[in-house]
Amino acid sequence: MRAAPTQEDIRRQNLGALLRHVHVLGPTSRAQLTAGMGLNRSTIGALTADLAAAGLVVEELPRDTGGRGRPSLVVRAQSQRVYVFACVIGVDRVVAARVGLGGVVLDRRELQRPGSRFSPKEVAEALGGFVGQMRLTAPRDGVCVGAGVAVCAMVRRSDGTIPEGPTPDWRDEPLGERLSAAIGTVAMVGNDADLGVVAEHTRGAAVGCDDVIYLHGDVCIGGGILSAGRSVTGGDGYAGEVGHMVVNPDGLPCRCGSRGCWETEIGEFALTRGTAKHAIGGLADAAARGDQDAEEGLRRVGDWLGLGVANLVNILNPQMVVFGGTLREVYLATAAQVRSRLNRTSLAVTREHLKLRTAALGDDAPLYGAAELAFARLLENPLESGVEAASG
Amino acid sequence: MRAAPTQEDIRRQNLGALLRHVHVLGPTSRAQLTAGMGLNRSTIGALTADLAAAGLVVEELPRDTGGRGRPSLVVRAQSQRVYVFACVIGVDRVVAARVGLGGVVLDRRELQRPGSRFSPKEVAEALGGFVGQMRLTAPRDGVCVGAGVAVCAMVRRSDGTIPEGPTPDWRDEPLGERLSAAIGTVAMVGNDADLGVVAEHTRGAAVGCDDVIYLHGDVCIGGGILSAGRSVTGGDGYAGEVGHMVVNPDGLPCRCGSRGCWETEIGEFALTRGTAKHAIGGLADAAARGDQDAEEGLRRVGDWLGLGVANLVNILNPQMVVFGGTLREVYLATAAQVRSRLNRTSLAVTREHLKLRTAALGDDAPLYGAAELAFARLLENPLESGVEAASG
Repeated sequence: MRAAPTQEDIRRQNLGALLRHVHVLGPTSRAQLTAGMGLNRSTIGALTADLAAAGLVVEELPRDTGGRGRPSLVVRAQSQRVYVFACVIGVDRVVAARVGLGGVVLDRRELQRPGSRFSPKEVAEALGGFVGQMRLTAPRDGVCVGAGVAVCAMVRRSDGTIPEGPTPDWRDEPLGERLSAAIGTVAMVGNDADLGVVAEHTRGAAVGCDDVIYLHGDVCIGGGILSAGRSVTGGDGYAGEVGHMVVNPDGLPCRCGSRGCWETEIGEFALTRGTAKHAIGGLADAAARGDQDAEEGLRRVGDWLGLGVANLVNILNPQMVVFGGTLREVYLATAAQVRSRLNRTSLAVTREHLKLRTAALGDDAPLYGAAELAFARLLENPLESGVEAASG
Repeated sequence: MRAAPTQEDIRRQNLGALLRHVHVLGPTSRAQLTAGMGLNRSTIGALTADLAAAGLVVEELPRDTGGRGRPSLVVRAQSQRVYVFACVIGVDRVVAARVGLGGVVLDRRELQRPGSRFSPKEVAEALGGFVGQMRLTAPRDGVCVGAGVAVCAMVRRSDGTIPEGPTPDWRDEPLGERLSAAIGTVAMVGNDADLGVVAEHTRGAAVGCDDVIYLHGDVCIGGGILSAGRSVTGGDGYAGEVGHMVVNPDGLPCRCGSRGCWETEIGEFALTRGTAKHAIGGLADAAARGDQDAEEGLRRVGDWLGLGVANLVNILNPQMVVFGGTLREVYLATAAQVRSRLNRTSLAVTREHLKLRTAALGDDAPLYGAAELAFARLLENPLESGVEAASG
């Protein structure tokens, strides 16, 4: 029952919409903006002038004018100048990047420690160090407008706290607070799958699809859900814990305390169970060589993957399911089995228009999603995010 | 990237917001509207005058002025004058009601045929007849602003077609079209659980809760999902088929062709399986008398109910799960078992703030939801829904 926006709200919304347009779709002519946003030429001109004065966009002549009449100016995001820091915290790797407006990765640092588990303190030190290095190489007139972090753990929406992590020292970790201090910029924190779906929807496999499930495999299996283009977060921000959907009540115990969770059937451990030496790549290779254990392992994993996807399809009727992280490779190795199970287990109408895809942004889907999270405040209110002040 | 609304959009939005306010919350003083909507007194006055001129609201002195100063006028919906027809199509019953603006049931007709299955033609005849009777008894200056229908079947969002129903003659049934013709008003069609969650959120157990799952039991088990106050419909409108989530891969065949669906474990047939003579009420009575078969049956159903709810809680992190239809009684008879299973199977944080409730609107949740569906167009655009023309 909120009232409609005021004149000021409207100007802010229009500035945000225009900036988002060039941020997501790239350089755009004034004519295209006029058509795409349903505003008249003079309004587009005024909005563009405001954004240009704030140093967020530039206007330039298009490269190829085609020689017919006066060309429409092209509006382009100031990608080199206006940027965020985007970070990913995986189980055994951390990544930090400087990402320019428009989603351009300008700089990137990564630390891998296979098999180990980072503590929150180690994560903060590593990311703080990376961000410090990247600040030094950023252009002098550059403006940092925020920071976003994707983490492979549940994130309490209200304050960016991690209630539970891979090791006990992650319990009730105030990650948002710790990282904001470490990198010297307010850091927004989100779950990696929740941010992955945003990234794939904005710049990846799911562009144009508004009902999407992104499944991210790591040691854990997480899900990011988009309904009508909006993130489904749940009451506290914990929606998407699809890895703990019980698919096999008589299955093996899960680390969560339950039994037969989807994660126990398709996660990292399931892949290597019985065929201890193989990760998914090795499993697929061995199966291709005729190793019957490996074939059976692949078949089993594909069947459980398909069953879980079928459940999600019946519950949420998505237009697309995107497989990311380790599930990308798992899906590619078991696609036929997944489809077969899906066809047996989901209702015909709920899967009628369903597309199955791998993450177009690969392992970087959460990184791009973290950048979107960091840009959100600027895109919400372009002229009051500290950009103007810093641009003088 | 849509542009912000125009001046005209804004006036329409504000008219809709004010009308929705009194529709949902009942008679409201101008002072309360000013505070609640964040608009100034003169704007509220002008909007109210427009709605009053269109015959949608009246302004009147409050009953108790408290004797202090000039009392603020109270704005009240014209519930007797402005109405919709709301219908429910169950497996073996049909209901039609005339519901006034404000959600007041003014008239109501019902036909039950226990154990039988209505054909689409029978449904249209019955509802057409009921609506015809109710038109005759409606006030002469009354205005019908729409019709909504809740049906216990999947509904294609784009055109109100039913792809599959309880009997073969429901296949690809153009229900929206057929009912619009039968009742002489454009009928919007929705799934009963999808409309149930809207009703419980608007006027029932979930008022104030924006992340809700409503579970409706009948012969089928359906779900209605609300995320951040918005209906989760899925790409084609089929989201919420939670009854066909597989919870027991080694379970019994389901009518959908799959095996071990939630519906086969907690639906009408599961309740009577093994204890053939009992519906849930009888089962609970027998268990209370010490009948061990009945006790075991109840325990089993409660366990499966809890497992499915736990899965949904892990996937969607709702603030509330509402049990409606036959599941209302099932939940009441098995609440301890449901909670116990939920506590073992859902993640502690995803259930931390979870409330389990029965439908406050009882079996009428879908009926109230159908009325909301019918009122939607009026509330979207109060002055251009044919009300003015008909009010002369």
